[in-house]
Amino acid sequence: MTVITEEKIWSDAPATADGWIARAREVSVILARDAVERDRAGGAPFEEVRLLKDSGLVTLLGPAEFGGAGQPWETAYRVVREIARGDGSIGQLLGYHYLWAWAVRLVGTAPQIGAVEELYTSNRFLFGGAVNPRDTDLTIVDRGDTLVYNGVKSFSTGGRATDLTVLEGIIEGTATHVFAIVPTAQDGIVFRGDWDNLGQRLTDSGTVEINDVEVDWSGAAGFVDKEFQPLVYNTLNFPALEIVFANFYVGIARGALDTAAEYTRTRTRPWPYGGDDKELATDEWYLREGYGDLQSKLWAAEAFVDQVNGEANAVLHDARENLTEQARGDLAVRIAAAKIRAADVALEIGTKVFELTGARATSNTVGLDIFWRNVRTHTLHDPIAYKRREVGGHLLTGELPEPTWYT
Amino acid sequence: MTVITEEKIWSDAPATADGWIARAREVSVILARDAVERDRAGGAPFEEVRLLKDSGLVTLLGPAEFGGAGQPWETAYRVVREIARGDGSIGQLLGYHYLWAWAVRLVGTAPQIGAVEELYTSNRFLFGGAVNPRDTDLTIVDRGDTLVYNGVKSFSTGGRATDLTVLEGIIEGTATHVFAIVPTAQDGIVFRGDWDNLGQRLTDSGTVEINDVEVDWSGAAGFVDKEFQPLVYNTLNFPALEIVFANFYVGIARGALDTAAEYTRTRTRPWPYGGDDKELATDEWYLREGYGDLQSKLWAAEAFVDQVNGEANAVLHDARENLTEQARGDLAVRIAAAKIRAADVALEIGTKVFELTGARATSNTVGLDIFWRNVRTHTLHDPIAYKRREVGGHLLTGELPEPTWYT
Amino acid sequence: MTVITEEKIWSDAPATADGWIARAREVSVILARDAVERDRAGGAPFEEVRLLKDSGLVTLLGPAEFGGAGQPWETAYRVVREIARGDGSIGQLLGYHYLWAWAVRLVGTAPQIGAVEELYTSNRFLFGGAVNPRDTDLTIVDRGDTLVYNGVKSFSTGGRATDLTVLEGIIEGTATHVFAIVPTAQDGIVFRGDWDNLGQRLTDSGTVEINDVEVDWSGAAGFVDKEFQPLVYNTLNFPALEIVFANFYVGIARGALDTAAEYTRTRTRPWPYGGDDKELATDEWYLREGYGDLQSKLWAAEAFVDQVNGEANAVLHDARENLTEQARGDLAVRIAAAKIRAADVALEIGTKVFELTGARATSNTVGLDIFWRNVRTHTLHDPIAYKRREVGGHLLTGELPEPTWYT
Amino acid sequence: MTVITEEKIWSDAPATADGWIARAREVSVILARDAVERDRAGGAPFEEVRLLKDSGLVTLLGPAEFGGAGQPWETAYRVVREIARGDGSIGQLLGYHYLWAWAVRLVGTAPQIGAVEELYTSNRFLFGGAVNPRDTDLTIVDRGDTLVYNGVKSFSTGGRATDLTVLEGIIEGTATHVFAIVPTAQDGIVFRGDWDNLGQRLTDSGTVEINDVEVDWSGAAGFVDKEFQPLVYNTLNFPALEIVFANFYVGIARGALDTAAEYTRTRTRPWPYGGDDKELATDEWYLREGYGDLQSKLWAAEAFVDQVNGEANAVLHDARENLTEQARGDLAVRIAAAKIRAADVALEIGTKVFELTGARATSNTVGLDIFWRNVRTHTLHDPIAYKRREVGGHLLTGELPEPTWYT
Repeated sequence: MTVITEEKIWSDAPATADGWIARAREVSVILARDAVERDRAGGAPFEEVRLLKDSGLVTLLGPAEFGGAGQPWETAYRVVREIARGDGSIGQLLGYHYLWAWAVRLVGTAPQIGAVEELYTSNRFLFGGAVNPRDTDLTIVDRGDTLVYNGVKSFSTGGRATDLTVLEGIIEGTATHVFAIVPTAQDGIVFRGDWDNLGQRLTDSGTVEINDVEVDWSGAAGFVDKEFQPLVYNTLNFPALEIVFANFYVGIARGALDTAAEYTRTRTRPWPYGGDDKELATDEWYLREGYGDLQSKLWAAEAFVDQVNGEANAVLHDARENLTEQARGDLAVRIAAAKIRAADVALEIGTKVFELTGARATSNTVGLDIFWRNVRTHTLHDPIAYKRREVGGHLLTGELPEPTWYT
Repeated sequence: MTVITEEKIWSDAPATADGWIARAREVSVILARDAVERDRAGGAPFEEVRLLKDSGLVTLLGPAEFGGAGQPWETAYRVVREIARGDGSIGQLLGYHYLWAWAVRLVGTAPQIGAVEELYTSNRFLFGGAVNPRDTDLTIVDRGDTLVYNGVKSFSTGGRATDLTVLEGIIEGTATHVFAIVPTAQDGIVFRGDWDNLGQRLTDSGTVEINDVEVDWSGAAGFVDKEFQPLVYNTLNFPALEIVFANFYVGIARGALDTAAEYTRTRTRPWPYGGDDKELATDEWYLREGYGDLQSKLWAAEAFVDQVNGEANAVLHDARENLTEQARGDLAVRIAAAKIRAADVALEIGTKVFELTGARATSNTVGLDIFWRNVRTHTLHDPIAYKRREVGGHLLTGELPEPTWYT
Repeated sequence: MTVITEEKIWSDAPATADGWIARAREVSVILARDAVERDRAGGAPFEEVRLLKDSGLVTLLGPAEFGGAGQPWETAYRVVREIARGDGSIGQLLGYHYLWAWAVRLVGTAPQIGAVEELYTSNRFLFGGAVNPRDTDLTIVDRGDTLVYNGVKSFSTGGRATDLTVLEGIIEGTATHVFAIVPTAQDGIVFRGDWDNLGQRLTDSGTVEINDVEVDWSGAAGFVDKEFQPLVYNTLNFPALEIVFANFYVGIARGALDTAAEYTRTRTRPWPYGGDDKELATDEWYLREGYGDLQSKLWAAEAFVDQVNGEANAVLHDARENLTEQARGDLAVRIAAAKIRAADVALEIGTKVFELTGARATSNTVGLDIFWRNVRTHTLHDPIAYKRREVGGHLLTGELPEPTWYT
Repeated sequence: MTVITEEKIWSDAPATADGWIARAREVSVILARDAVERDRAGGAPFEEVRLLKDSGLVTLLGPAEFGGAGQPWETAYRVVREIARGDGSIGQLLGYHYLWAWAVRLVGTAPQIGAVEELYTSNRFLFGGAVNPRDTDLTIVDRGDTLVYNGVKSFSTGGRATDLTVLEGIIEGTATHVFAIVPTAQDGIVFRGDWDNLGQRLTDSGTVEINDVEVDWSGAAGFVDKEFQPLVYNTLNFPALEIVFANFYVGIARGALDTAAEYTRTRTRPWPYGGDDKELATDEWYLREGYGDLQSKLWAAEAFVDQVNGEANAVLHDARENLTEQARGDLAVRIAAAKIRAADVALEIGTKVFELTGARATSNTVGLDIFWRNVRTHTLHDPIAYKRREVGGHLLTGELPEPTWYT
């Protein structure tokens, strides 16, 4: 059950980054209208994905030759942020899609990159991934020409609403990990639909079972003659992941501040006791001070994320052979720091907005808790404390974070 | 739908304060078992109230001669805290009951006090109140021998689960406010059952309609021959209210810390990256540090609330003629400060526990958000910022808070 | 008594913004070497000013035709930040100089602008100002062709080390304020040398007496035929002032973090108890986490200040006729927010660095308190709480801060 | 150079705990008058110690039979707090004295306890200690009947102003540690007078050289026939130490709040811009709110310290044979938590008071930084982060802190 009623048809594609961000804002406003109701209803985000496809956002990073917008990552970060401002779940969904769509550039061979980008761009396909590293790996049996995946993965964002699914597993009896992209709609991929968590409820991030899913060796990302072609750039997925997180955290925070300010302007009653004696809540000292504090913090977080977006963009669009361990590590540290600030500020805003709107804003007809729930849920993806440790270790010793699934 | 299955029968009554606190702990443990499920189910807390009555807690403050425990307020505060540790809603419900049951001592005449205490104690009646001061007052028509109340009130805690309801209104054409206690079960009292808010969901704090509810003038609290008998002590209701809040806030916070620590002990997986390399989550540096920080803060808040409980207890049990404006004001300031600390710490714990339990603790099967929701909701009762203002004004100038409905 | 021993001679001038920032970094490193000793010695910063002049930084904003670097404000902000990183006092001194040097552009007529810029640039003159708005205004007597200033002003930054002093007063019997620039070295200007405050000790921000200082009417800034030519741009001095503050706050904070990290690397001993058991302090969990937290916060503040620097730069270098009240107000709000964040983060770093260096770092031979003292002192320039109020008011209602001496 | 001019002579001794606390308050007020000037002058606190002796506070814990007050530790904690409120250094000095005076009860034999208590009480002797565990141990040569100590110790609080010095060393060629109490005034004890640190400047906590200081074996604390008589109680010194710290931290914080509030009342000017428009600074919203926040936090910390003072008192006055490892460990955890809160709150108050007094309060004639300097310095005694770890470990696993020199 989803209640988006908008029948907006976009007949044209923006030509500029600013145009795409404005487009994202249009979509975001549509999503914001019933974000609380859709969040409550739960389920998989089919209609929301239709909106992302119709608006052209799904193919923002796709090559122009196949009908994509050919935008750089800097635009994609801002688009994710705008979408999250209206609906945190859908911001996450779109962000993960961009990451998976780009993953082939990180680890694929040149022919694989071409094939995958054509496939998803020309079809407006949405990506999801079944790769949570803290579960047991999928097992892969090498049948000579093909690889057969089996296993179970949790936290598989996008789930039923995706067209393509990224698999990752380990070939039995070896230490060889293999990524591959497969159509989501096949009997061997079964989503349990069991994502029932505090927040980001429309990401369909439940459990997926992989039963005998067969992939041609030619689809084994980055493999040539069954040998992997390593590149520092391969390890870039994870810093890239974390800066996408930072973008949707500040997007959610901005959505919270938008919503709260509008509530205060239109519904909060001034406090009749205590000497402030204002006729309008918006004139009350403590409300102005409180909003000013949160606005300042959010602006600072946004500026930091903007700056790091630019740094990540440069790395992602430079020739992939040029990436050094030092540059990768320095970027990872900056991204870790941006994520820390985005998470801290978004969490603070998510809970403080109640103090600036008042007791009646706790009504479930308002649903102001959605922002805290969304940020509280996703910021646990990996412990912030370890990010602080990485940033501090780098400052003290120059040590670069070891590339793992989280750094 | 409530799922308390306990058929605990208490055949005896504790003889000491510690005994009563232990009894409250027993009830609290029962409530904690399905607090999340009952919260989700919503509705009025009929079974929970039965538990409070069966355990003797409803009559904790009632005179021994009528079957009450005759305990002082200091015990009641601790009992409220214990109950809130297991179920924040029921802690609030019981706390409000104690306040309304005691209200007759604050504003009633000696005969009224005797009558009301006998009535509720011997019958184990639960109190609620329809007195939210930020709504329009109920109107009262003086019919000579009786008063007739009409109007609508929101935030009427206890609602359908209460036996007695406190009304407050203003006699038409005058500035005279009159409190009265009436049986809840009468046609003229209609609960809308519309309490659908973020937290404290089992308090049934919805809207109540008062339609031609008639009260004998002899039940007009504190009136003799239609004249009110003022006393500084009359104004004590509101500081007393706020220290009850502080108690259930720290109770909820303790419940959150209990629950999170148990989750960390039994379910949190250690973080495999980043150099800590512990086999158990409970050995991880950042988890220990995080729990240590919250435990220290909560211990401090509890100690402060304990201290102020003692101060409030002394005032409430001293002869009511002796209360001075200075003593009332000094107590109000201390209570305001205790409430500030309790609220701040409880809010912090409610959100931080997620960082100490991990991503999987956001599953709705865990329901760890109940603590934040409960505290976030009730701490908006009146703005904390104004409490800070009162405490600071007192420090700077010795100014006492003007007695209002919130100070 | 100053102990700078550097005999660095710069024979060339950098050609780019980055070159000037690097030049500032060179000066900053020289200043950092004995910043603690010079701070303790106190007095007026004669040698430090010589360094600023020799390095070309004093004329950074001066027109190229008179020998200035002709750099935009964006460079100046970064230069102030770099200098403050090595010596907070000198960062403030240089920042104030830039502001006073630019003031003629804000309020002067075209001929005045030309004359003043030639004068100070070709002579490498340093500016100071005797204009603290919270003191009584200087009185001005209009003698027909000249104006004669008298009075006393506190907080006159730069003092004895300046070449030019900006005066501001009110013509007796009128409400007319007049700014003028006069040579510092004259009998009528007497510095009491009484700046003995907690921090920013080398700014010589003491009291100045103005005794019969005479100024030709042609030097009355912005006046033509004794009539003031108003422009929205005239009111821009004060937002410009506050973004300079934000720059030297983050500069001081960066200096603190530099100094502390170097101390931790070279002198902090690992803690032998408690289970961390590291051989090096730089490997300790809590030190890494603590530095990571501060680094993240400072990076965010720096990014925000960078962003607002760009916004302020655009306004300051656009044609002055084009400035609107809206644009001026929006900029003032952004600057207020940047200042809030810079101040909060710098204060936090100033005090937390001790926890990351250890007990022996409190030795006065280390002097690690200089950063806290400097930030603690200057961030009181005007109350941060009112800045929060402005930012919040703008978010809630779109209200622009009324142009005053502080907004 | 010290400038206490008070010639107060106390002819009587208070009879009650409250009387002694009032006495401490009298001394505290005398100390507060010139605390800033004495702090600046530095040197050893000879006159301050005379005041402590004259007032009877030095022998507060001493047995009545020898002229002591025979008060319990609970009184001593409160006395230390009161003294620190007026002068943080002297609060520390007196606290350390109580600890060293009591140390013989912790580790001494019964005859040693009697002898030491008589000695110091009847002579009003002040104790100091040369035992910093992070320095190399003093070496002890066993000469048969005597022990001869040699070595150097830093952080030897009390120094030149003490009458007795506690030594601790290790007998050469063994792992045997021996405590002993010796007269300070002897050639073998040389104080370098090199305590030149940020705060607590009057504690004379410099370096001491121990040159061939000879002690009879009968003075080896706790040794009978050269064998040590172990008891869990022996390890109690360190939790006891840390709760004394907590007391002087909250004392310093209270002093800061006293001083700031008085400044605000008498000297802070209201802010003329920004819409609050109050005639008195004490009516300004942000000042009231700020003071209210700090007062609430300090009251909470004081209440917690009070509660733990009671717990520590009970353990210290129970029969020493009865102490269990569990009770010792539980107390150590509670003390650690109280110290965390006291330190955090005192640090916050030490820096925030400037925002509540204004820019002119940074004048060195005010000296408002003394509180931050004092707390900032001593709270580094051992890292707070490790205390959080202990408290959290205990909550999670019940683990007791291993008795070390800091737990």
